[in-house]
Amino acid sequence: MDKIVECIPNFSEGRDQKKVAALVAEVASVNGVKLLDYTMDKDHNRSVITFCGDVDGVKEAAFNVAKKASELIDMRYHKGQHPRVGALDVLPFVPLKNVTMDECVAIAKDVGRRIGEELKVPVYLYEEAQGNPLRRNLEDIRRGGYEGFFEKIKMPDWVPDYGPRVMNEKSGVTVVGARNFLIAFNVNLGTSNVDIAKKIAKAIRHSSGGFRYLKAMGVDLKERNVVQVSMNFTNFEKTPLYRVFEVIKNEASRYGVNIVGSELIGLIPAKALFDTAQHYLMMENFSYDKVIENRIYE
Amino acid sequence: MDKIVECIPNFSEGRDQKKVAALVAEVASVNGVKLLDYTMDKDHNRSVITFCGDVDGVKEAAFNVAKKASELIDMRYHKGQHPRVGALDVLPFVPLKNVTMDECVAIAKDVGRRIGEELKVPVYLYEEAQGNPLRRNLEDIRRGGYEGFFEKIKMPDWVPDYGPRVMNEKSGVTVVGARNFLIAFNVNLGTSNVDIAKKIAKAIRHSSGGFRYLKAMGVDLKERNVVQVSMNFTNFEKTPLYRVFEVIKNEASRYGVNIVGSELIGLIPAKALFDTAQHYLMMENFSYDKVIENRIYE
Repeated sequence: MDKIVECIPNFSEGRDQKKVAALVAEVASVNGVKLLDYTMDKDHNRSVITFCGDVDGVKEAAFNVAKKASELIDMRYHKGQHPRVGALDVLPFVPLKNVTMDECVAIAKDVGRRIGEELKVPVYLYEEAQGNPLRRNLEDIRRGGYEGFFEKIKMPDWVPDYGPRVMNEKSGVTVVGARNFLIAFNVNLGTSNVDIAKKIAKAIRHSSGGFRYLKAMGVDLKERNVVQVSMNFTNFEKTPLYRVFEVIKNEASRYGVNIVGSELIGLIPAKALFDTAQHYLMMENFSYDKVIENRIYE
Repeated sequence: MDKIVECIPNFSEGRDQKKVAALVAEVASVNGVKLLDYTMDKDHNRSVITFCGDVDGVKEAAFNVAKKASELIDMRYHKGQHPRVGALDVLPFVPLKNVTMDECVAIAKDVGRRIGEELKVPVYLYEEAQGNPLRRNLEDIRRGGYEGFFEKIKMPDWVPDYGPRVMNEKSGVTVVGARNFLIAFNVNLGTSNVDIAKKIAKAIRHSSGGFRYLKAMGVDLKERNVVQVSMNFTNFEKTPLYRVFEVIKNEASRYGVNIVGSELIGLIPAKALFDTAQHYLMMENFSYDKVIENRIYE
């Protein structure tokens, strides 16, 4: 495995275990692909598969699982709290190793075209794969949901990038794109006052003046009697964990509150942790090839 | 590569590039072995090769390079500042991945026996491979050097573990063992007063009351006008980098001095950096399999 691409398809099915298992099996059966994780959420009625592999393997697995989703999932009967527009709702490709973002954009376009043409599902490109800034954000594309897309697809601004210009009643539409690795990292504060977590979240997130590649919200963890700053790092190289962590620590101290712990949701690239260690230990000469494992697998 | 052992042979030859290249080639030619690094030091007249691989490959490469050293290096003509006792001076085996220390001890004994019996070089086991506490430390075995071993080998306490009970004039003796990964990590202080670095080194090292698995000394870096606490971590899991770093920071602050940087000499296992990130980010639920690279190569 020289070039490694990650793919994280999100499906609008989180209750029927047999269907989700069939989607997982579809991915796992492809040569050159490694299944990393999958999760089912009953409330959201949604599941997420995480896998990676070489370029050809990932493309094949992504298309095959899109096809399987179009067969197994019927959006006409789908209910769930999470915003969604299709059976295969979102299909991002992420550069993991020896792969550029441009290559992931090309993969997204290839797979997106096949989904549109062969499965007759309208496809919208997003994030790095989308040139039109009005259609780059997943939130903008998904606004109105599956139900709203019957009208939205007819609007001049919302002509699909691939596939038919009419809604697919059974499968909805699919959003395909390329993006950076997303790290979900939460910091817990030693207070039961959720307003403090909300104020800090507001101070650090991009949308209200904070870090460029950070989403954040304040959450009450009632069972633990603490509050949490819940975050998504959409580019951990440009908005690193340690910098945000130190700002949270400082903002919390202004309320006399300490950080009491943190948690990682899902996976993290080794580099995000190496960068953190390098920062705190003030290393002058650190490089990736000083890590013995990187020499072994290079 | 499932089980991975590291091996770091030290040779008493650091001036004749052709001889060192021949030793490196001997290692690199073995299947199942990956050459990671090699260094030559003219002042010490010494070279170090770092390689790793599966158990069989590492054993074969270690014996082959021991044989090659016994052919190429003649200790009767060796001069150098560094303490040394043989052509292949020290041969440590280190568990890197999915290998226990006991397995590395077994490897050291197998290779040590072959060096003794087939090359007629007296072999002393050290560190984890040595049961006798009086002979565990490399410094104790090497005391007196090559020149002193002609008498030392005759003493009842210094009967070799393998090989002949008489000195090998050309090759000297070889010290073979198993040990933990050694991290060489230096911290620079913003002062030109080397006494401060020496005092801190004394405070943190095992020999004078400090951390169990830490060696340290104070060094003057005249060309940079700073001083350095130069360290060897002999067990980074029990004496971790971040804990020592924070103690140095605190001790230095007592003199009104700041840490201005640090440097890594040689290689470091990813785990030492993961542990550091986990500590500073106060992670509650970190585990190795949260790192995506560990999933890919598991």
